[in-house]
Amino acid sequence: MNQVQTIETDANSVETLETAKTPALVLDLAKLDRNIARLQDRLDGFDVTFRPHVKTGKSLEVGKRLFAGGTGPITVSTLAEAEYFAEGGFRDITYAVGLSPDKFARARALVEDGVALSVLIDSVEQARDLVEFASDGGAMPGVLIEIDCDGHRGGLLPDDVTMVTIADILKVGGIDVRGVLTHAGESYGARGGIGLPEAAEAERAAAVAAAELLRATGHAAPVVSVGSTPTAHFARDLTGVTEVRAGVFTFFDLVMHGIGVCEIDDIALSVLATVIGHRREKGWILTDAGWMAMSRDRGTQKHPVDQGYGLVCDIDGKPFDDLIVEDASQEHGIIKARPGSDAAIPDLPIGTRVRILPNHACATGAQHDAYYVIEGDGHAIRAVWPRLRGW
Amino acid sequence: MNQVQTIETDANSVETLETAKTPALVLDLAKLDRNIARLQDRLDGFDVTFRPHVKTGKSLEVGKRLFAGGTGPITVSTLAEAEYFAEGGFRDITYAVGLSPDKFARARALVEDGVALSVLIDSVEQARDLVEFASDGGAMPGVLIEIDCDGHRGGLLPDDVTMVTIADILKVGGIDVRGVLTHAGESYGARGGIGLPEAAEAERAAAVAAAELLRATGHAAPVVSVGSTPTAHFARDLTGVTEVRAGVFTFFDLVMHGIGVCEIDDIALSVLATVIGHRREKGWILTDAGWMAMSRDRGTQKHPVDQGYGLVCDIDGKPFDDLIVEDASQEHGIIKARPGSDAAIPDLPIGTRVRILPNHACATGAQHDAYYVIEGDGHAIRAVWPRLRGW
Repeated sequence: MNQVQTIETDANSVETLETAKTPALVLDLAKLDRNIARLQDRLDGFDVTFRPHVKTGKSLEVGKRLFAGGTGPITVSTLAEAEYFAEGGFRDITYAVGLSPDKFARARALVEDGVALSVLIDSVEQARDLVEFASDGGAMPGVLIEIDCDGHRGGLLPDDVTMVTIADILKVGGIDVRGVLTHAGESYGARGGIGLPEAAEAERAAAVAAAELLRATGHAAPVVSVGSTPTAHFARDLTGVTEVRAGVFTFFDLVMHGIGVCEIDDIALSVLATVIGHRREKGWILTDAGWMAMSRDRGTQKHPVDQGYGLVCDIDGKPFDDLIVEDASQEHGIIKARPGSDAAIPDLPIGTRVRILPNHACATGAQHDAYYVIEGDGHAIRAVWPRLRGW
Repeated sequence: MNQVQTIETDANSVETLETAKTPALVLDLAKLDRNIARLQDRLDGFDVTFRPHVKTGKSLEVGKRLFAGGTGPITVSTLAEAEYFAEGGFRDITYAVGLSPDKFARARALVEDGVALSVLIDSVEQARDLVEFASDGGAMPGVLIEIDCDGHRGGLLPDDVTMVTIADILKVGGIDVRGVLTHAGESYGARGGIGLPEAAEAERAAAVAAAELLRATGHAAPVVSVGSTPTAHFARDLTGVTEVRAGVFTFFDLVMHGIGVCEIDDIALSVLATVIGHRREKGWILTDAGWMAMSRDRGTQKHPVDQGYGLVCDIDGKPFDDLIVEDASQEHGIIKARPGSDAAIPDLPIGTRVRILPNHACATGAQHDAYYVIEGDGHAIRAVWPRLRGW
């Protein structure tokens, strides 16, 4: 299992945004807390459990921040995350990726360790494999059936009676059928918030219809799980839904800004970089944050505003006008004015520190082993929070 | 400093491609060795030093493979690589990314440790900063001046007399001016090998012209360094060049195939994945290798043959006809027939293992902490070789 450690900085070892090694991943605690409070406040208006997705942060410290320093129900994208968070005190976990037989033993080990684990399947084949695995009488996770609400990934259509067959097989095999789970992948195609209330309603309706189908055939289906950051922020009605998942809302990013879910000022994550050169005749500034630091994610490529590999800010996190990382190689970022812009290129001498807002917080985060935690306008690095990697 | 360890598997702990945890990074030793021998043989025909770029492998074991188990001159893209390889016995290192003052102390520490380190600059500003840093009489690396041969990154044009000013400043400051370095970034825009001999000649001519300019003004410029995998494989003449760099040639990838530098069968790196679901009515196969395992690199997006997020092979590494990872979320890969193809979708039940060839070996490698090393057709994992991360 991956070894990770928190290193709290102390008064004798304080580094700052000016002195830290670059490139580095910077997390603004004030924005993180504000983003968490915003969604929590919103969901407080509905009768649902909040089960945040920790695949964005991949950090115990970020995870605990979601629950006022404690723990709570979470969603994970890998068994490595499940194991890491379980060890860190999170004992109610949904693994929201289809389960294959090679992963049954690790799932069982978590249940044996006392974790309330739910896993996801969408086929009779998986149900039979699970029942066969359970036939030795060993501990088994509960099962959610994946529902497809908009054609983006796996799952059964909400009226597909295959789900009843699956539930029947599991029930006969002594495995707990917990209910249904869906994810509004289509919501990431929205721009400027348009269509998001409708995407949220489609997600809700699909999950509730599937649960009703199961109930009509004798399965209690106590869990009706929906979620994505865009739909969680735009749902108007969650009738019949029992829990909401969301992940990237913690940090936000330029994709979420383009979709219409946050302001630029809400983005809590940035990459600290150092200017290493210029091509002044071309209006280029080169930094040490290439795609290795930013990731290869070009999630805003088809948005009305293409942010390149990231939006460039000064060391305080204030964006320069129309300045983006327009191109990148492994360890070089090339900063230019946005194509079509006549914004002036700022004079940033070699050694200047900048902060670059990412297209996609999950992808950029994954390029780094730790967060340098700052708070608001302060330049002091108050803690170094490790991130989990691997599977 | 990053801690990494080699774990040699032994007879009692042998895992195989069938039993290993997925997703995982698989390296075929037979192809690696063949790729290394191919470029080495080619360069043996020229009077040049081979200084491979270890940013692709980021592994001591891969690095030693480049020198028949020993060590030799290398190129690195980060100071973390320089430190890691220096500790592993590589004592002649060129750091081929523009140096900013925040990194001077780490560069000096390597020199103090006995490493023959060269660093890269392209401005008077950097030369002055280096001379100021050197004024305490401490150890200093040698300096190469970056030359721009095709407009893709930093560097001075081959006839820009600024390089003489830089060399003069360094010389007065007691810093060793080693010569010039250039990189044919434009060569990555080639398709099917067309234009690569010309790109190699442009790279050579730019570097040699710059070196001649320095020599005409009293600087010996003993090092004339060129290189990229495409140009190293297509250069017809290297007169005046003293060393050649290349990195991705060790593993190759789908981008290099599209550029025309390798065959599909030469690609030594793949991602081992497990089938986790189907949407048979759509012709989709879902696996546990999403973009977290493949990277977000879409380097073949504008190639005549777009490989999506990777080309799908069976467990033996044999490609299926026209089967690619057409879409990916964080931990889901969606395998489909290539758009426009009427190839049959193979029947791959849940749990089936596949291997996916990457667009870009450097980017895909960076998503993983280790290589599972196999040899040719064998399924046994013969070693686990760690990869370096971070800066």
